[in-house]
Amino acid sequence: MVDGLGSALGEPLFERAAIIGVGLIGSSLARVIRRKGLAREIVAFDASSKVRARLRDIAIADHVAETAAAAVEGADLVVLCAPVGAMGEIAEEIGPRLMAGATVSDVGSVKASIVAAVAPHLPASVTFIPAHPVAGTEESGPDSGFATLFLNRWTILTPPEGADPKAVARLAAFWKGAGANVETMAAAHHDLVLAITSHVPHLIAYNIVGTAADLEEVTQSEVIKFSAGGFRDFTRIAASDPIMWRDIFLNNREAVLEMLGRFNEDLTALQRMIRRGDGEGLQSLFTHTRAIRRSIIDQGQETAAPDFGRRTKDDG
Amino acid sequence: MVDGLGSALGEPLFERAAIIGVGLIGSSLARVIRRKGLAREIVAFDASSKVRARLRDIAIADHVAETAAAAVEGADLVVLCAPVGAMGEIAEEIGPRLMAGATVSDVGSVKASIVAAVAPHLPASVTFIPAHPVAGTEESGPDSGFATLFLNRWTILTPPEGADPKAVARLAAFWKGAGANVETMAAAHHDLVLAITSHVPHLIAYNIVGTAADLEEVTQSEVIKFSAGGFRDFTRIAASDPIMWRDIFLNNREAVLEMLGRFNEDLTALQRMIRRGDGEGLQSLFTHTRAIRRSIIDQGQETAAPDFGRRTKDDG
Ligand SMILES: NC(=O)c1ccc[n+]([C@@H]2O[C@H](COP(=O)([O-])OP(=O)(O)OC[C@H]3O[C@@H](n4cnc5c(N)ncnc54)[C@H](OP(=O)(O)O)[C@@H]3O)[C@@H](O)[C@H]2O)c1
Ligand SMILES: NC(=O)c1ccc[n+]([C@@H]2O[C@H](COP(=O)([O-])OP(=O)(O)OC[C@H]3O[C@@H](n4cnc5c(N)ncnc54)[C@H](OP(=O)(O)O)[C@@H]3O)[C@@H](O)[C@H]2O)c1
Repeated sequence: MVDGLGSALGEPLFERAAIIGVGLIGSSLARVIRRKGLAREIVAFDASSKVRARLRDIAIADHVAETAAAAVEGADLVVLCAPVGAMGEIAEEIGPRLMAGATVSDVGSVKASIVAAVAPHLPASVTFIPAHPVAGTEESGPDSGFATLFLNRWTILTPPEGADPKAVARLAAFWKGAGANVETMAAAHHDLVLAITSHVPHLIAYNIVGTAADLEEVTQSEVIKFSAGGFRDFTRIAASDPIMWRDIFLNNREAVLEMLGRFNEDLTALQRMIRRGDGEGLQSLFTHTRAIRRSIIDQGQETAAPDFGRRTKDDG
Repeated sequence: MVDGLGSALGEPLFERAAIIGVGLIGSSLARVIRRKGLAREIVAFDASSKVRARLRDIAIADHVAETAAAAVEGADLVVLCAPVGAMGEIAEEIGPRLMAGATVSDVGSVKASIVAAVAPHLPASVTFIPAHPVAGTEESGPDSGFATLFLNRWTILTPPEGADPKAVARLAAFWKGAGANVETMAAAHHDLVLAITSHVPHLIAYNIVGTAADLEEVTQSEVIKFSAGGFRDFTRIAASDPIMWRDIFLNNREAVLEMLGRFNEDLTALQRMIRRGDGEGLQSLFTHTRAIRRSIIDQGQETAAPDFGRRTKDDG
């Protein structure tokens, strides 16, 4: 296959992988596990009976379980792929049914609060290694997933101190098998990094789209018509799943408020530059920010293509 | 040609079009004028001798003039496509050389300040009709332009009261010929609409990229690695031309500060929701903003494709 994922592993890393919550991320994970032979068997469970029915139709897992507790039976890898706010109750339900020696992980977009909600429910016989694949689209549900979602993206592992190094290495190999680059850091640091690279950007995108919707001087129809000037890109971000993002802000409150404070300070300074007509100050900031874009392109986290392929072919 | 622009006009709308400033917008305009036969002849002038040399090489205009004054000689359409801050001095130079009956227009991203800078230099024998094609990429220069840039995008005309209706209709036909939809409004209203749909979005994109660059707790390398979580999209916007954007903020100061004030009020409310853990309030805002995205897609100002074509084909 020329999808960039390479050939399947000779020997799977896990015997039985259980995926709890099978939306965009969970279904992408199921697809790449099968595509790359990362586990011999895949069991899936989702709280929604509609999703379970759909999973039986599209058959991206070998078995679809009727409860989370049944899904983890005999699994040596359990990955929680449900919304952040649901992780604690799932852990409570599956805790007593986990196989000794199993690795339990998750894909939640915040880490410290998930550790606090999940860890107390897990038996000492399993290893809990929280994880976060920094990859996604603004879509949801099992049909939106695809096997290459994690390819060349970063997955962050936040193993607690003293976590079994063999289990950590195996989970890292698992994500590398899925095409990801893997980095390890403390849960609290993860939450700070993601606050600035993901959570605050989403917050201000939601905010400006909200502001634009409430104006009286400018009609909604004008906002929509003339969105090609920049606003449009924010609406894509602000179309992300409301429940997922509610959970993220409720569960990464401190780091988000901290980074938002910095953003506000800087915005006040920028506002003052405009008020004072400080052209040099503006130009110098705008020049500085270009360099970061170049680094992102150089490191393969984006292509240089203008306008994300919206551009039509030039005819001279 | 299957570029969506349709066939060329039977009879050109103008005899001789002069384009002053031939970067992204000016070169796209030259290309579509020729492609659609909107003017019989195209004369181009750019302040940069490097650009003029390049224009002779790529030959997207029939003549390349050595001064702006020479370029407008005998032109019945003159379009100023230079940075906003340069419009006044160009008008001063070309004013005495303009042909009686000519239409003078521009493509600047702000309107009221351009009217103030340009109009005093124009003779009463020409019709000045400011315009703004709401279309662009983050690239600059004559090689970045393409004939379909304006296709299905909106061009806003802001004719002053009493402008010759025939000249306005002909300029509207010209932009429709270039593939654009045309809307007419007052210059001051244009500046308010664009402040919210373009200028403030760019300002906050520049701002968050600047904030991220200055953090001590999170390294630049971490910001770049994990940018796929949302930040990346802001860096594209914040890579836009620094001089163009400096000029926009200096020349649309009041409307930008007004809209920024609204943005700040709303952000303060959002911040309070997070601090208080108001999940319902967050979810309700996040749900509301989704609807706007849908309208933009419905009105053809964007495609629904997730992640702007970054997504690789699903292999099941
Ligand atoms: N989307 C992204 O960009 C992204 C990126 C990285 C990480 N993440 C993280 O990945 C996780 C899933 O996100 P997603 O985008 O895949 O969401 P999604 O497409 O909405 O899928 C989540 C699925 O989990 C199900 N679910 C809810 N509560 C459950 C429970 N108690 N037990 C089992 N299943 C449950 C949902 O069912 P219902 O439909 O009935 O609610 C839904 O089918 C979240 O923790 C998120 O923070 C997301
Ligand atoms: N880019 C967008 O997204 C966009 C969208 C809509 C409208 N606009 C407006 O379109 C105009 C041009 O933007 P652009 O993106 O095409 O910029 P660009 O690619 O940088 O091109 C501008 C060109 O004008 C030249 N120039 C500067 N001063 C001049 C003068 N006094 N006389 C003649 N030429 C001069 C520049 O030469 P040097 O290189 O020597 O400076 C450059 O070649 C601006 O008013 C902008 O507000 C831009």
